[in-house]
Amino acid sequence: LARTREKIVAAAESEFAAKGLAGARVDAIARHAGVNKQMLYYCFGSKLALYREIVGRKIAERSQFLDQLPDLGPGLLAFMYDKGGFDSDFVRMLQWEALDFDGGIPTGAGDRRALFAKAVARVRNAQRAGKLPRDVDPRRLFLALIALTVFPLAFPQLARMATGASPTDPKFRREQSKFLKWIGSRIAAAP
Amino acid sequence: LARTREKIVAAAESEFAAKGLAGARVDAIARHAGVNKQMLYYCFGSKLALYREIVGRKIAERSQFLDQLPDLGPGLLAFMYDKGGFDSDFVRMLQWEALDFDGGIPTGAGDRRALFAKAVARVRNAQRAGKLPRDVDPRRLFLALIALTVFPLAFPQLARMATGASPTDPKFRREQSKFLKWIGSRIAAAP
Repeated sequence: LARTREKIVAAAESEFAAKGLAGARVDAIARHAGVNKQMLYYCFGSKLALYREIVGRKIAERSQFLDQLPDLGPGLLAFMYDKGGFDSDFVRMLQWEALDFDGGIPTGAGDRRALFAKAVARVRNAQRAGKLPRDVDPRRLFLALIALTVFPLAFPQLARMATGASPTDPKFRREQSKFLKWIGSRIAAAP
Repeated sequence: LARTREKIVAAAESEFAAKGLAGARVDAIARHAGVNKQMLYYCFGSKLALYREIVGRKIAERSQFLDQLPDLGPGLLAFMYDKGGFDSDFVRMLQWEALDFDGGIPTGAGDRRALFAKAVARVRNAQRAGKLPRDVDPRRLFLALIALTVFPLAFPQLARMATGASPTDPKFRREQSKFLKWIGSRIAAAP
């Protein structure tokens, strides 16, 4: 049953990335997973519960990245990019969610707020330790760090027009990682 | 006829922002503009031509912003945000385009590349004049500036979870503008 669950989760991730929560079809997920719909409902209960499962896993992964984070100085941005910035599926899921957002509470908001609070607490610690400037709101700074790491994958057509390369090309990634080290060092530099 | 065209353009912008190019319905655009479909086709020829018209206008607006840009030093980011960062419709259109992007050539790519080249030329001039650091690729820097100004509106659910406020709230805007001045001065600072 555990293997069946994993097949369903993998198929569902692709389907949610391709079409968003509203557009995703349970039939298509079951078909791609090679199971019948009854099995899918038996394992997860509903399309929304399956979506919640996937968001929960993405958040848990990112919480682990944060625990591994060696240092919150100049290398922070490149670390975030190298560890979490290549997950096209999750970025697309967030984009569908953004287009559908009506000001309500997003799926998995509790875990996501907890992750964000954990990240902000680490930024604040780095500020206290003198590794990041103190004269800035750590929440807004962390939102900017997400923007810098996620944007090329979220807008691949703009990344392509700007640099001539796809944001998933290895060369693009190397140069973007180098650039993020540069900008990270500007943000972290002693005033 | 000019007024009719403008009504159609306004209705089309809302429809494309709500549903993207593929999902937009010509019937709905005509209905919201208060014209019949024949008139819409007479004025614009096709749904794609109407989309192209709107993208062309957005690009022309941004090209004018660039011409007005007084200075490419620390205030650059806040200027970009204050002038162009609140256009939810255009950001949503770019998001639909991103979700639909297959590596091909986006609509209006010629004008968009020209706009980008113009912006990059100004960044390069600022580098030569010593107003921005020289040790960075101006194309990648400009892409990062777009990321920082556009991200909260592109992912309002994340901006809300991060700061508690909607990215369209006046208070959010004021604080984001202040933050962008801060980060702009870090990027522009003499090494």
